[in-house]
Amino acid sequence: MSRYDIAIIGSGPAGVSAALTAKNRNKSILFIGKRDLSNKVSKSHRILNYPGIPDVTGADLIKAMQDHLDSMGIVLTEDQVTNVYAMGDYFALQCAKGMYEASSVIIATGVMPGKLLKGEEENLGRGVSYCATCDAPLYKGKETTILGYSPKEEDEAAFLAEVASKVYYVPVYQDEVGLKDPKIEVIHGVPKEIRREDKRSTLVLNDREIESDVVFVLRDAVSPGQLVPGLETEGAHIVTQRDMSTSIKGLFAAGDIAGTPYQDAKAVGEGCVAALSAVSYLTELSKQGS
Amino acid sequence: MSRYDIAIIGSGPAGVSAALTAKNRNKSILFIGKRDLSNKVSKSHRILNYPGIPDVTGADLIKAMQDHLDSMGIVLTEDQVTNVYAMGDYFALQCAKGMYEASSVIIATGVMPGKLLKGEEENLGRGVSYCATCDAPLYKGKETTILGYSPKEEDEAAFLAEVASKVYYVPVYQDEVGLKDPKIEVIHGVPKEIRREDKRSTLVLNDREIESDVVFVLRDAVSPGQLVPGLETEGAHIVTQRDMSTSIKGLFAAGDIAGTPYQDAKAVGEGCVAALSAVSYLTELSKQGS
Repeated sequence: MSRYDIAIIGSGPAGVSAALTAKNRNKSILFIGKRDLSNKVSKSHRILNYPGIPDVTGADLIKAMQDHLDSMGIVLTEDQVTNVYAMGDYFALQCAKGMYEASSVIIATGVMPGKLLKGEEENLGRGVSYCATCDAPLYKGKETTILGYSPKEEDEAAFLAEVASKVYYVPVYQDEVGLKDPKIEVIHGVPKEIRREDKRSTLVLNDREIESDVVFVLRDAVSPGQLVPGLETEGAHIVTQRDMSTSIKGLFAAGDIAGTPYQDAKAVGEGCVAALSAVSYLTELSKQGS
Repeated sequence: MSRYDIAIIGSGPAGVSAALTAKNRNKSILFIGKRDLSNKVSKSHRILNYPGIPDVTGADLIKAMQDHLDSMGIVLTEDQVTNVYAMGDYFALQCAKGMYEASSVIIATGVMPGKLLKGEEENLGRGVSYCATCDAPLYKGKETTILGYSPKEEDEAAFLAEVASKVYYVPVYQDEVGLKDPKIEVIHGVPKEIRREDKRSTLVLNDREIESDVVFVLRDAVSPGQLVPGLETEGAHIVTQRDMSTSIKGLFAAGDIAGTPYQDAKAVGEGCVAALSAVSYLTELSKQGS
């Protein structure tokens, strides 16, 4: 397996900025994110204070960033990282579509909107999963439930329906659901809790309960403590120093996940700093290795 | 004297970003800087990692920022701040062209290139000055020396020559000097030291000495400790927290003066954060006052 210099997880403004600076420093980068870069930014109506680009819609700012990535030949890897393991002098990234290795990691995944559901964290890996693509094979012929926080999760539902006997799909967004597969049943409601009893998982909604073999909770971002075992966090944020280093050597964070205020300008600043700190770390690492 | 909500000192990327965010939050701002916003940025050949504006010249990035300021109706006050005094619940700004008051201050002056000259700091105010416009009246009919770190200081030399009997002008830059006034003598050399003896100041160059009544040292930025008496600094930088607050309540810093790396993306991020922190401080202040 080829080992990247820097893995950048997340493709919002912080991740884009980190990728541009890392590439500019001639590092090999694995840039993992979403095709539309950032759902949160692209849905912003108007951004007035991103210096140099006056009164821009979120969609246009994302387009400007995509053009910038393209102009520097930076290719996005569309994948979802489920776990990052610190292996000493490198990191192993477990993703939906495979494993990757990188000497350093920058986490720029944004913050998870809202709180964890009651029962979610304690049942993770035991009837609660964050990755349908990863765990679908485990639920061949079984009943499954997906709690989808954005329309793109409908693709996951369609994929899961290819193997599962049943997919209950609960959309947590306003857009109309476009799923047509007869194995998929769309149920509207407000999620309250996940219960696990007798090897069955129950998603409790405001006005009904859905029992199945697993509940997939599909959000744009997972909590940082889940993503990187052992990482020091504070609430929804990763604890970072001024150079964007974290409690794990070689691992950096930038953008909303590194703390408030949630601003695009702050995010690009931190992404740039994180990338330069990762470059310094790589230099240090290569001295130790030689 | 009207009191501004936020005084922003410095018009590079950090200052521009702070101004945009402060204005966006409906604060009254005093935005003090230079007509070309930032000499350092505008001279950058190519900037590759300012997210959303690919492969841009420094001059074009400055133009984009100027257009952004214009679009939000933010007017630059062309002046030079020589001292900032913390007065308790407000700040007094002593400038070349007058005094201003503001409830909070953001310092985004950039870092002073190079080190202080030997003898510079201890003789400041006693035969060494940072502001020809301010102190010219004191040297009517006297002999003066200007150490100019950029071509724009030639305007200061021309102004000083209107009152002084003699101006020795030492350019510390490559550009050709365009001064024609017979009272001005241009001397090339590498500055080493400033000595003060018998009420005369001597600028020591590598191969000669110039004796006069005062030495004006005209750089783009002054050292932060000089600018704000009592402010905690570390080398050339102001000590700041993550919210860009400093050791003085109500005073914030952003950009190069707040520390490395010297990057435009970092500067705009910190400017944005400093402005939001100033806004929070103003809210707190208004609660105390009511």
